[in-house]
Amino acid sequence: MTARHGTLFGVGLGPGAADLMTVRADRLIANARHVAYFRKAGRTGHALTIAAPLLAKDAIHFPMEYPVTTEIPLQDPRYNEVLSEFYAQVTMHLRQLLLSGEDVVVLCEGDPFFYGSFMHLYERLKDTVRVEVVPAVTGMSAAWTASGAPITWGDDVLTVLMGTLPSETLIQRMTDADAIVVMKIGRNIGKIRHALREAGKYDRAWLVEYAAQEGQTVQRLAEAEDRVTPYFSIVLVHGQGRRP
Amino acid sequence: MTARHGTLFGVGLGPGAADLMTVRADRLIANARHVAYFRKAGRTGHALTIAAPLLAKDAIHFPMEYPVTTEIPLQDPRYNEVLSEFYAQVTMHLRQLLLSGEDVVVLCEGDPFFYGSFMHLYERLKDTVRVEVVPAVTGMSAAWTASGAPITWGDDVLTVLMGTLPSETLIQRMTDADAIVVMKIGRNIGKIRHALREAGKYDRAWLVEYAAQEGQTVQRLAEAEDRVTPYFSIVLVHGQGRRP
Repeated sequence: MTARHGTLFGVGLGPGAADLMTVRADRLIANARHVAYFRKAGRTGHALTIAAPLLAKDAIHFPMEYPVTTEIPLQDPRYNEVLSEFYAQVTMHLRQLLLSGEDVVVLCEGDPFFYGSFMHLYERLKDTVRVEVVPAVTGMSAAWTASGAPITWGDDVLTVLMGTLPSETLIQRMTDADAIVVMKIGRNIGKIRHALREAGKYDRAWLVEYAAQEGQTVQRLAEAEDRVTPYFSIVLVHGQGRRP
Repeated sequence: MTARHGTLFGVGLGPGAADLMTVRADRLIANARHVAYFRKAGRTGHALTIAAPLLAKDAIHFPMEYPVTTEIPLQDPRYNEVLSEFYAQVTMHLRQLLLSGEDVVVLCEGDPFFYGSFMHLYERLKDTVRVEVVPAVTGMSAAWTASGAPITWGDDVLTVLMGTLPSETLIQRMTDADAIVVMKIGRNIGKIRHALREAGKYDRAWLVEYAAQEGQTVQRLAEAEDRVTPYFSIVLVHGQGRRP
């Protein structure tokens, strides 16, 4: 880890609106010579779409294309094997760049250390090169802001759940919770609706799609029964705690 | 709510570093004619300290000075009465400004709709005037970034707790949790340590003080036993979920 090595920057892009990026992220992206970002093969990718207007024309791109997203179920051991191999490959390329003295800016949707993919690069590179992480506005902050109501009051406990959790876990956590955020919705929406009903909180739940992005929608979950919800939707139940 | 009325902007400042403010917040603050902010009487206040370098020299200030912070216990009914009267007073002044056509930028530490004081103004003004809320990087994002490790992996459940909660509640929630954030530390630190021990998570807990600010410290909670912890410290327990 000598001074001649480059730095890996994990730069959070925030929820999507260009001006909800931090000043630090904006500056790092505008000055980046090497940028890397995850995406699904054949797509531009959300991270690149957000950052593109800021990037220098001659920036060198390293798209990291997931070999699998939903084709193999999470529970299948092959899922981890395939992803593990993928992370090893992209890490090798990044390590070469960094050891040759180049800085690399990784464009990260949301906040890098909050359910992000950057952490898989971070864990593999942090002992070899200098890493700087730039925190960002989370998608859930954009969602509760869009909902037009504070998510938490006083001593409310906030519980953040992934829609990919088993139904029983969701029901139990939702029952115990004051304020709730559910992420990773998509095809899990039916299970999430069921769990909220079982927890007695369905009527207080809101669905926010594309928070702080084009096409943002905010509606009561109960009034969106026929809706096909994108994976990056967020379901919210606001806390009702102490207030003067 | 006519076009001639002003807009109330609830602008999140983020965790404290000037360049962790969003581009939108930065621009709104630099152009503000009227700024309002909470603070303890006799202090500059953290919100003003963060925003001051951006403010125009002739900006008109409205400091909203808490009549009480820790002098009356939270459980005392007078606490809510005194605060309620205070919010009514400052709201009256803001409403006059807004109805006369002036925009007002309220400087909010952290993210306005996440355990913020802005929500008390918001609830009292939202039906009379136009309000825009600008989300921000939360103090907890800055804390887990400073800790140098992702707070959540895979399907980890994140539980956000206030140190002001009763001991039994803290123990139960901490026992059930994967990843934990505890805010509002200060004089609650002894209770928080006890609860983490009871939940079997004390050895995995980290204490972050002044995240993303001057004087930032990161240490294992177990190695900071003699420390007087500021109210705005954050305690973290990282999740240990699925990772490829």
